[in-house]
Amino acid sequence: MLDYKLLEALGAVVDQAGFERGAQVLGLTQSAVSQRIKLLEARLGQPVLIRAPRIAPTDLGKRLLNHIQQVRLLEHDLLDYVPSLGDREQRLRIALNADSLATWWAEAVEDFFREHTVLFDLVVEDQEAALKRMRDGEVAACLCMTPRSIQGARARPLGGMRYRPLATPDFVKRYFPNGLDRIALAEAPAVVFGPDDRLQQRYIANHGVTVPFPHHLCPSSEGFYQMIRSGIGYGLVPEIQAQAAIERGELVDLESSSDVIVPLYWHYWRQGGNILEALTQHLTQHAQRWLTDLDGFENSVGVL
Amino acid sequence: MLDYKLLEALGAVVDQAGFERGAQVLGLTQSAVSQRIKLLEARLGQPVLIRAPRIAPTDLGKRLLNHIQQVRLLEHDLLDYVPSLGDREQRLRIALNADSLATWWAEAVEDFFREHTVLFDLVVEDQEAALKRMRDGEVAACLCMTPRSIQGARARPLGGMRYRPLATPDFVKRYFPNGLDRIALAEAPAVVFGPDDRLQQRYIANHGVTVPFPHHLCPSSEGFYQMIRSGIGYGLVPEIQAQAAIERGELVDLESSSDVIVPLYWHYWRQGGNILEALTQHLTQHAQRWLTDLDGFENSVGVL
Repeated sequence: MLDYKLLEALGAVVDQAGFERGAQVLGLTQSAVSQRIKLLEARLGQPVLIRAPRIAPTDLGKRLLNHIQQVRLLEHDLLDYVPSLGDREQRLRIALNADSLATWWAEAVEDFFREHTVLFDLVVEDQEAALKRMRDGEVAACLCMTPRSIQGARARPLGGMRYRPLATPDFVKRYFPNGLDRIALAEAPAVVFGPDDRLQQRYIANHGVTVPFPHHLCPSSEGFYQMIRSGIGYGLVPEIQAQAAIERGELVDLESSSDVIVPLYWHYWRQGGNILEALTQHLTQHAQRWLTDLDGFENSVGVL
Repeated sequence: MLDYKLLEALGAVVDQAGFERGAQVLGLTQSAVSQRIKLLEARLGQPVLIRAPRIAPTDLGKRLLNHIQQVRLLEHDLLDYVPSLGDREQRLRIALNADSLATWWAEAVEDFFREHTVLFDLVVEDQEAALKRMRDGEVAACLCMTPRSIQGARARPLGGMRYRPLATPDFVKRYFPNGLDRIALAEAPAVVFGPDDRLQQRYIANHGVTVPFPHHLCPSSEGFYQMIRSGIGYGLVPEIQAQAAIERGELVDLESSSDVIVPLYWHYWRQGGNILEALTQHLTQHAQRWLTDLDGFENSVGVL
């Protein structure tokens, strides 16, 4: 059998992004952890860690991490039957998009948390990067736009996030006095989440504006919303986040019936154990309270 | 004089984190951008970019980026006098902590934005990393806890963010029935922003709990707050974010008079040009509307 003491050291160093903190979590000295990883590498005849510029697992290291995560999830199930075996602390590492995390996620898992002893280890990633993390074994599940599952995993549709192109009434008066035309879009400052924010970019491209268009960059879901609330820019905002401000007339649509639906699929390991299975059940049953029904939309998310 | 076409190519590739997008922003082909960077490297006799695993400037590249940013800020001032010289689009790249961005930042710069033509390029970084970005020339200003300015820059105190240790009443009943003691803290799940979240870690360590303590990881300011609102964990939350929920009794303090004040200093380049100077003035005058007075606190931020 594999030497799990060594694998655990690898997991801790990668999770904590450092030898010192990894050692702290394990209650070991830094040199003990370092020796375990060297021993692991000596046995395998290959490095498992890249040390610089930042700590990261090698391809082999990623495979081992994937394996450890799966073993841990299976151990958790075993503990249901043999509680004396050990500590029940169970971490579920999940990648999800910033907008889900800032809006509906916590409410959706609230009841689940009350019934299960679990600690969430959340990672913010956009669509493709999230699936890559699944493949690399860094997360046990992820939320992303892709319906197709990766090997060893399953995917279930949860629903769609509805985005509306919003700005303050003052902003509209200043930048879009004649509506949403190309000229106005080439002048008005948008808010964009980051260079990878395809949602905003395609929305604008669909209106015939070629890059570069003026934009602020704001890599924070709530900061993004606040900038639009403050009239610093316009952008596509999750309806769930802006609902109250829209009702009070503090934010208005830039054009009517131009909502964008982003479908969200829950990807999870098949061999992920009972708790991941239970979370999957829970989300599949309840997420629709916060998300839009995907029926009929599946072929119409043109903007993405 | 330096060849700014080449430097501009470097800036675009680093800003956009890729040759393809960098070229798009400049309206050039990818191969033209690639050639410019190769030419720059040939002239300097040293690489300016690390290509893999992700695009990053070398030390020399960072010095050049620092220089470009400063030249751009100076150009903007020149345009006040010679508007015909060119395009007035002005980007200010600023690093700030996630909690400021999710709470007071947009409101604080709202008026400034109305009076100045500027696009914000915001970067979320914790304290030390933000100053490092200043030093590397990646940002023109940053918000951080350190009062001491780096070479070429100045620092001004803006005020303090007040954090309160909060949870839902149900959470307190379940996990802290006898108050905030070591035993309860060793069992109750905290929410922690990331492995670098010293605020939460020190707060708990100050109560005599040694790591590891049970915690969720949630690297999103709003997600962090939502998890505490949903009773999934407890944690130190910016008062400004939780005010309404505290007043409605939906969140309660874990202990009385245990607020933590995090001082915020605005660091900015001395040669940053008029617009950075104006933003500095604006923040120095107005930030106190959202932040706590630091007088008397300067020596008492013991928890940090």
